[in-house]
Amino acid sequence: MTVSDCIFCRIVAGDIPSAKVYEDENCLAFMDINPLAEGHTLLVPKKHAETIYDMSPEAVASLTALLPRLARAVRKAANAEGLNILQNNGACSGQAVMHVHFHLIPRVPGDGLGYRWNAGKYQEGRLEQLQSRVRKAFEDESD
Amino acid sequence: MTVSDCIFCRIVAGDIPSAKVYEDENCLAFMDINPLAEGHTLLVPKKHAETIYDMSPEAVASLTALLPRLARAVRKAANAEGLNILQNNGACSGQAVMHVHFHLIPRVPGDGLGYRWNAGKYQEGRLEQLQSRVRKAFEDESD
Repeated sequence: MTVSDCIFCRIVAGDIPSAKVYEDENCLAFMDINPLAEGHTLLVPKKHAETIYDMSPEAVASLTALLPRLARAVRKAANAEGLNILQNNGACSGQAVMHVHFHLIPRVPGDGLGYRWNAGKYQEGRLEQLQSRVRKAFEDESD
Repeated sequence: MTVSDCIFCRIVAGDIPSAKVYEDENCLAFMDINPLAEGHTLLVPKKHAETIYDMSPEAVASLTALLPRLARAVRKAANAEGLNILQNNGACSGQAVMHVHFHLIPRVPGDGLGYRWNAGKYQEGRLEQLQSRVRKAFEDESD
């Protein structure tokens, strides 16, 4: 897929209309038209990146610096009690548009939303194995 | 609850052991001991804040600047195909520890995890009403 086929790039470019709530040189926030809850809002970087793996630390920082204010605004506008912030990477994770986006999803008790929480336990020694692997992988990566 | 009762503040302080994978002056990443999937990792600010509403833009930015590298590391260490990044605000949203944390949850097809995706549609005019309310609430808020 080229950038010009990306629906969020086309929204950023103004080729497709959107219900914008905030815009600056780096990012755009707009209402999700297929909301999980009233007030469901998306925050996206203007510069195309498929997943968060592909973004620079600076690009993520400038995007997410908006989250506190936007989260308070969405919660207030939706008269919500809580809020989930969700960012999916990869089709199997639920990512439907291959342009990085943060969902802001207003929550009230009993709304039936939320993450499927089937937490498990590690077998003895397995936590430490995975800790070593994450540490090693983090050291092998660079920003 | 005082800060000294906060389990993540006690982990940051070293009073409670944790399987750390990264630490700097502002933040700590460690393995979730009740994982949703192998490699489930948490990223927290060292300075106590209950929710993202309470954080400064700069504090969120310095925390989330780590996400690209940490996300790549967790995905690799877990041999995952995808990754959800989730940050819950408020008990009704699934927040269990009242200290801001980002979940990094490795995903593979058919794992039964993910967000409950029951998207709806707005009645005519309702999207625009909510857009106006979010815009107004955003303008009324300051950083």
